[in-house]
Amino acid sequence: MADAINLASKLATFDEKWSPRTVASFNGHDVMVVKVEGEFTWHSHADTDDFFLVLSGEIDIQLRDDTVTLKTGEMFVVPKGVEHCPVAREEAHLLLIEPTGTPNTGNAETAAERRTI
Amino acid sequence: MADAINLASKLATFDEKWSPRTVASFNGHDVMVVKVEGEFTWHSHADTDDFFLVLSGEIDIQLRDDTVTLKTGEMFVVPKGVEHCPVAREEAHLLLIEPTGTPNTGNAETAAERRTI
Repeated sequence: MADAINLASKLATFDEKWSPRTVASFNGHDVMVVKVEGEFTWHSHADTDDFFLVLSGEIDIQLRDDTVTLKTGEMFVVPKGVEHCPVAREEAHLLLIEPTGTPNTGNAETAAERRTI
Repeated sequence: MADAINLASKLATFDEKWSPRTVASFNGHDVMVVKVEGEFTWHSHADTDDFFLVLSGEIDIQLRDDTVTLKTGEMFVVPKGVEHCPVAREEAHLLLIEPTGTPNTGNAETAAERRTI
């Protein structure tokens, strides 16, 4: 039996910030929802682009020479290798897509555990 | 200068149905918005999963042995090789992700031209 994946329902199952939960797999990628608030860490991914779609709230994706503000319904792809640091002044909810196993900090030692819900 | 991609603004630039417009590239994939209404064609993609997220409205993704109803804020991934036929009783707006160059009908001869906006 195939079921729709309701992103708001998935987000309602946890409160932890900066801890992406995988909701689907797609071509070797994890499709994830995450709650964010405050500033993350500066990082880059050498081997993958980084997909952000804001489901609710607003975030800034700080780049070294620019800042991209994303409101609800807006998306951005950080190209691979580009340093970035997301920051949310208030709680925001995002859809993220990254290759399965990609550490969210760009570093396996500091990355959040990848969980499926 | 990096800019947010506002999906609603992108959708407002065209009216054609079943004609995806590429709004970003991500790891060799096109991220697309599309307006749909009515029934598409039965097809499958031998080499790629098919990502659907409903941005507004509601669609059914008919599978040969099941139907998945997707409302606004719901998503589904059709696994590669699985026959499916999307249908929308009223106009709906979707986010799609497929490898760059994938024909939307599963067949290059009948596919919509892939355009970037």
